Amino acid sequence: MRPIITLMTDFGTTDGYVGEVKGVLLSQVPDAEIIDITHDIPPQDVDRARLTVARFWRRFPESSIHLVVVDPGVGSSRAALAVASDGRFLVGPDNGVLSPALLIPSARVVALSVPSGASATFHGRDVFAPAAAAIARGASIDALGVEARSPIVRRTPEPMRRADGGIDGEVIVVDRFGNAITNLISLRGGTIEVGSFAIPIRQTYADAKIGDPVAVVGSSGFIEIAIRDGDAARTLKLARGARVTLRNA
Amino acid sequence: MRPIITLMTDFGTTDGYVGEVKGVLLSQVPDAEIIDITHDIPPQDVDRARLTVARFWRRFPESSIHLVVVDPGVGSSRAALAVASDGRFLVGPDNGVLSPALLIPSARVVALSVPSGASATFHGRDVFAPAAAAIARGASIDALGVEARSPIVRRTPEPMRRADGGIDGEVIVVDRFGNAITNLISLRGGTIEVGSFAIPIRQTYADAKIGDPVAVVGSSGFIEIAIRDGDAARTLKLARGARVTLRNA
Amino acid sequence: MRPIITLMTDFGTTDGYVGEVKGVLLSQVPDAEIIDITHDIPPQDVDRARLTVARFWRRFPESSIHLVVVDPGVGSSRAALAVASDGRFLVGPDNGVLSPALLIPSARVVALSVPSGASATFHGRDVFAPAAAAIARGASIDALGVEARSPIVRRTPEPMRRADGGIDGEVIVVDRFGNAITNLISLRGGTIEVGSFAIPIRQTYADAKIGDPVAVVGSSGFIEIAIRDGDAARTLKLARGARVTLRNA
Repeated sequence: MRPIITLMTDFGTTDGYVGEVKGVLLSQVPDAEIIDITHDIPPQDVDRARLTVARFWRRFPESSIHLVVVDPGVGSSRAALAVASDGRFLVGPDNGVLSPALLIPSARVVALSVPSGASATFHGRDVFAPAAAAIARGASIDALGVEARSPIVRRTPEPMRRADGGIDGEVIVVDRFGNAITNLISLRGGTIEVGSFAIPIRQTYADAKIGDPVAVVGSSGFIEIAIRDGDAARTLKLARGARVTLRNA
Repeated sequence: MRPIITLMTDFGTTDGYVGEVKGVLLSQVPDAEIIDITHDIPPQDVDRARLTVARFWRRFPESSIHLVVVDPGVGSSRAALAVASDGRFLVGPDNGVLSPALLIPSARVVALSVPSGASATFHGRDVFAPAAAAIARGASIDALGVEARSPIVRRTPEPMRRADGGIDGEVIVVDRFGNAITNLISLRGGTIEVGSFAIPIRQTYADAKIGDPVAVVGSSGFIEIAIRDGDAARTLKLARGARVTLRNA
Repeated sequence: MRPIITLMTDFGTTDGYVGEVKGVLLSQVPDAEIIDITHDIPPQDVDRARLTVARFWRRFPESSIHLVVVDPGVGSSRAALAVASDGRFLVGPDNGVLSPALLIPSARVVALSVPSGASATFHGRDVFAPAAAAIARGASIDALGVEARSPIVRRTPEPMRRADGGIDGEVIVVDRFGNAITNLISLRGGTIEVGSFAIPIRQTYADAKIGDPVAVVGSSGFIEIAIRDGDAARTLKLARGARVTLRNA
């Protein structure tokens, strides 16, 4: 089977940086199957990238290698990591972006050696891609560096129970459709309070009338706030970090 | 030969939804050849997506599988379809987006069963991708659901002949270059009237002077209005639906 | 080994033009490995495209085929080229976009025959993709056309030495991060003057304080001007062509 290497960056594609990374990978692993996840992470938005990693990394078959380069600290003393977790591999900077894989207790992590001659501004090409290629050719991550004992791990904030029985949460990310995805979970329905609105939790967007707000359990298991055939974030002025409250039914 | 699965969505790539779909496909069909068509269809713009499908679906080799997810009705009672048409397969919602393949008289269509546990908000991952994977592994579409007898079919509007001999048409889509693609066909040259302009039909953009409007038979066979080295839609204020008239030579 | 064909265009992906090109390639070379470089070159920006080609074309393994379609002159008398250079192949219009490969003294170039029936507005699909497919199937470029004796070659402007010992250069491109990449080279450190600013040349972005301007030797070997965790082009009002001066240490 051809080794699968996925790519996720904040590079955009116009400048050719992604092209360089792909060229390095295919030069070192000519039979690699290269899969684009995204190159449109907002520049240097590590937290947004972490949430995207959470969505896809375990959907891929075992042995897949995920190259994740959102790296505002490139060239600083931040470590470069390779991770083996739940049968998959991830390569990227030590800034929290790989947290979803690091939270698995059996995860193993090494700090990559930086090859001499590596550009101080482009570790994606000169450090991370060669490490991914080495793994694709069968290297153990232990051969690529020394154990990293305390990699940076970021977590999505936990909701908080209120004295009045409600649960305070927040908007974690706004997606392309303007849906505001929260950190709240509900198995029993109820309502979501957003400012002075009380939005019912329903099965699906189509349970609301066109233009009406609706909350649903989204595809990652968390409650998201939508407007049917509309843009909830814009209409309700919801951005990352906005406070919301769950009232269980 | 590896099965070809193309992907077309309005998801963007940032949120990781496309990554999830690719992971599902490769987990179920490890030797699939995944080809991105686009993920930049404007959110929920079914009509724009239909026109894009029309351009590419038959350019691919027979047995290719086209996964098309522009699905504002996800989670509603709209059917999920698999189509076999002209040797290719298409999977997507029953909202008209697959019309170019459905217009072939020999097309066969089934309404997909929705797996239990499918997210009500993400049929791309939980309904359409598994169906595409099953086809790639050799399933007949008949094994995936029951015949759909009247799927929604949308057509590009037909031009209308005027009493004075002209032909009234409209702008169907504006492309990235600002070219306004119409529903008009001409084999004989002539002019296109746009408001008070009369634009000559020429062989190619380069037959106009820089900055001048020109009409040409575009690469899909329809007349398009361009400005050489410029943006016709912006300059001439042409949007989807704008009325234009053909005067044959 | 499967033939590698990379794609670089200014088409965007929404309109389906890229989908058509991929369909043509896979219909003619079913085992091709298609690699997206970018489709987001600003429309008709040949010079930007040339700089992107320079970054990636030789990173790919020998025998790779690079399809480069940024082609404002499509349908005019400009030639369509196939190039064999340093073991790789490139196909694209004769407008300077292939210059990085043409500057290699041993490069060979042919002017492609245009197939009868080719659309006058879409040579990417009807001229360049079939040529790339033919090369992928083993054709010599000599079989595809006649030698082109003086293809258009564009060069990045050379810096100029000043009477006072400084070196005048300019900003060649601004990347997605707002880094302004110049045509200046320095092996000895020094400073870059931008208007009334004197910006020190350091090893890496992280050698500056957050929000401070810094110049570094970028990943292509040229000096680039950045702001740590910021956008130098916006803050310092640097666009393509902006004058900068190197003062060696």
